[in-house]
Amino acid sequence: MFEVAELKNKVSKSAYEAELSLIREQLLNVQLKLETAAMPVLIVIAGVDSSGKGDLIAKLNEWFDPRFMSTHAFGYPSDEEKERPNHWRYWMSLPPRGRIAIYAMGWYGQVLSDRLNNRIGKGQLEKELSHLNKLEKELTDDGALILKFWLHLSKDQQKKLVSKQEKNPETSWRVTETEKRHLKLYEKFVNICEQVIRHTSTPEAPWLILNGLDPYYRRLTTARHIIEQVSLRLESHQGASSVNLGESIAHVKSGVSLLSSLNLKKKLERSEYQEQLAFYQGRISQLSHSARQLKKSTLLLFEGWDAAGKGGVIRRITHAMDARNYRVIPIAAPSDEEKTHHYLWRFWRHLPRDGKATIYDRSWYGRVLVERVEGFATTAEWMRAYSEINDFEEELTEHGIILLKFWMHIDKDEQWRRFKLREDTAYKRYKITTDDFRNREKWELYESAVNEMITRTSTEYAPWHLVEANDKYFARIKVLSELCKVYEKELY
Amino acid sequence: MFEVAELKNKVSKSAYEAELSLIREQLLNVQLKLETAAMPVLIVIAGVDSSGKGDLIAKLNEWFDPRFMSTHAFGYPSDEEKERPNHWRYWMSLPPRGRIAIYAMGWYGQVLSDRLNNRIGKGQLEKELSHLNKLEKELTDDGALILKFWLHLSKDQQKKLVSKQEKNPETSWRVTETEKRHLKLYEKFVNICEQVIRHTSTPEAPWLILNGLDPYYRRLTTARHIIEQVSLRLESHQGASSVNLGESIAHVKSGVSLLSSLNLKKKLERSEYQEQLAFYQGRISQLSHSARQLKKSTLLLFEGWDAAGKGGVIRRITHAMDARNYRVIPIAAPSDEEKTHHYLWRFWRHLPRDGKATIYDRSWYGRVLVERVEGFATTAEWMRAYSEINDFEEELTEHGIILLKFWMHIDKDEQWRRFKLREDTAYKRYKITTDDFRNREKWELYESAVNEMITRTSTEYAPWHLVEANDKYFARIKVLSELCKVYEKELY
Repeated sequence: MFEVAELKNKVSKSAYEAELSLIREQLLNVQLKLETAAMPVLIVIAGVDSSGKGDLIAKLNEWFDPRFMSTHAFGYPSDEEKERPNHWRYWMSLPPRGRIAIYAMGWYGQVLSDRLNNRIGKGQLEKELSHLNKLEKELTDDGALILKFWLHLSKDQQKKLVSKQEKNPETSWRVTETEKRHLKLYEKFVNICEQVIRHTSTPEAPWLILNGLDPYYRRLTTARHIIEQVSLRLESHQGASSVNLGESIAHVKSGVSLLSSLNLKKKLERSEYQEQLAFYQGRISQLSHSARQLKKSTLLLFEGWDAAGKGGVIRRITHAMDARNYRVIPIAAPSDEEKTHHYLWRFWRHLPRDGKATIYDRSWYGRVLVERVEGFATTAEWMRAYSEINDFEEELTEHGIILLKFWMHIDKDEQWRRFKLREDTAYKRYKITTDDFRNREKWELYESAVNEMITRTSTEYAPWHLVEANDKYFARIKVLSELCKVYEKELY
Repeated sequence: MFEVAELKNKVSKSAYEAELSLIREQLLNVQLKLETAAMPVLIVIAGVDSSGKGDLIAKLNEWFDPRFMSTHAFGYPSDEEKERPNHWRYWMSLPPRGRIAIYAMGWYGQVLSDRLNNRIGKGQLEKELSHLNKLEKELTDDGALILKFWLHLSKDQQKKLVSKQEKNPETSWRVTETEKRHLKLYEKFVNICEQVIRHTSTPEAPWLILNGLDPYYRRLTTARHIIEQVSLRLESHQGASSVNLGESIAHVKSGVSLLSSLNLKKKLERSEYQEQLAFYQGRISQLSHSARQLKKSTLLLFEGWDAAGKGGVIRRITHAMDARNYRVIPIAAPSDEEKTHHYLWRFWRHLPRDGKATIYDRSWYGRVLVERVEGFATTAEWMRAYSEINDFEEELTEHGIILLKFWMHIDKDEQWRRFKLREDTAYKRYKITTDDFRNREKWELYESAVNEMITRTSTEYAPWHLVEANDKYFARIKVLSELCKVYEKELY
């Protein structure tokens, strides 16, 4: 989920200053229009320690007209607050129609800290989150616009920032024991954050996750998103009450993309490849046999660019498996029968029995890739698909299915080389159609869809494995070795 | 929740036969239209034992064209089924677009039986139910229409039916040990059913609860509801995906109403009244003092017809309480400030601190009563208000607040008598406005709104107390004694 947001995104000082006056004018403008539109706006600024929440909130207070807004932060409940139901203090803080309220950590601070310190368990967390979802739904149903920002930092980024703050006498007071303790708890905390964000990224109020390292980037991105979303909602009046997500994500990733951050130069020599291939195939043969005996099912899923080598790697895996125990399901356009059902139905159909393996060559992710980009699914359909897919995969993994998802990544040049090669090779020519060439024109659209897909569907129970696949040898060994690693973890 | 559905509703044989041929024609008609509209319809027939589920399903199979429908019942999962995620068998049973599928108990049989037999706890039940909600939402988002019927019987009705079946040699085979065991578990089972229905009565797929005693009534009601809902959806095409609930409830209650079943002749002599009043006021004085010391808050809420005596009974209660510890909040039209917030905001505001009492003279139920009937709230607004209110009250009671809800009921004649009396009494004249007389014209609309309100918001944590209030003495003592009873239960 934080894969994209771990990448540092930078805006130069000059670019920031050039845009600033326009941004400030627009912010005041939407604030003014709000007043007459009589819609309350709730802006939640949350994130990990040192990610710049305080700076961002200060800037928003500077940029908006402070007379028509308020800022709230909830610490430990006061005596007054404790004597009322939990949500009482949130309700009392709600802005009237036409006003803006900014929330530091929103209603998420308490549950995050309760869970981090084991004051509540996983079940209780889920219950609290579903109450928060209901709260937000009640407010958006009533016409409120809720914009939630999550500022993320990678572990390294956070560490560096904290030590920088500590050295600077002006900021060293900020680094308390809590910050240092949190630094050590980074993995645990981020894991909890992931659950929280996943459960509370609703169509009514989705999270926008961004890297918080660069102040210019985080300020501009947040301000732009606010301007865009408020304007959209004002135009549509009491139309759709959900945030227009698709646009915003493409917007945020501007500049840095997860895929372009992969190092496609990684490669493996043929001799080493052959040696490792033999080793991993032997291992997979053993491991898949154990899985069969332990009645653990396996589900492997491959997505990637055309000609990225999905078929090749699948053959290397199945080569090592007992043919009675696996099935490869190539996913093309749905059949007539499949079309008369929910789009997930055809994937439910092929779920393996306990102990069996199913390998999907392309999958349900078509909904948020090709169907999104080519317009086969409506915006509402692909937007709700993220959580439908997360729920689906949660059911699979809760049943005990071992689920691995691979994205095979090549660059545009490599794809072109492979297409040409296919044209020149008689037995590969059938693989290539005019569609393939046309799809190349939409490369950027697909890339942005992939970035969003990974952000929204990489979960703790089913993370995406990104495979640098310009070199086929490297890609195959990476997939096989990751499969072995997961098998070993799940089976022993 | 089952208050209305406990009342026997009857359709005579002749009325049934007179309507039957039209109903059958209409059922075939909507089935035919479905085919071209390409929308799947799921009909869930669930309910307590012996409530006629089997008979109803048999009739639907007889009346629909069997070639374009299917019927499903899920028992204990088979080996095949156990080796896949829980929901797999449900997905595999889904009808294609244009077809109808009937489900005996739907996906609810397993969770009900698991909870009844303590195979799962309360938390796990909630989790399962939220998964079922997601399943249904995915299907309705995709265009499916889901109609869920719950056939209810009162404990007495069930007992009589079972012993009748047992005596009849043709049906005695149906009465197994399970039925007899369930008979003993009636309260426990119905309590679980209530939780299940409350959690899964979503805007997408609400339950329709009806009394299952009379075969003619249950068949006609179900058939009419199916015809009505499918037709509505076909007309609106891919419009609103939620079931039009308001209409249907009014429809179902036809004939019998909860309010009209109350015995308004109940009365108390003045001397006895005075004696009991003194007793209960003394008791309340002690109990409210204990509540204060135990830091338990109390929230009393009074709804009822104009001139039903809400003010009088409130005065008798507060008379017994320490004036520092309670507040009476009369609810009239919202203030300007309140209008700029969510309608529940103004009720959150007045929540008592621990140990204090708040008495609401009218309440948030205005949303589903006056605002519904007078059109101040849109259909969508008051329809979602039921679950918003249930969630709100759940938060209150989870915090430990003692919450009592009273409906003060008088009949139309008694109201008229009291209005006249008010006109004739100088110091009561201020209480009466022309509004009051106008509201009388909408008596039936209000009555149907009250019936639905009680069905949808009488929960195990906050049941409605219905008070026969034609006789003021009787009504006051009933309220005071129920308050004492609840206090005693909660405090000791």
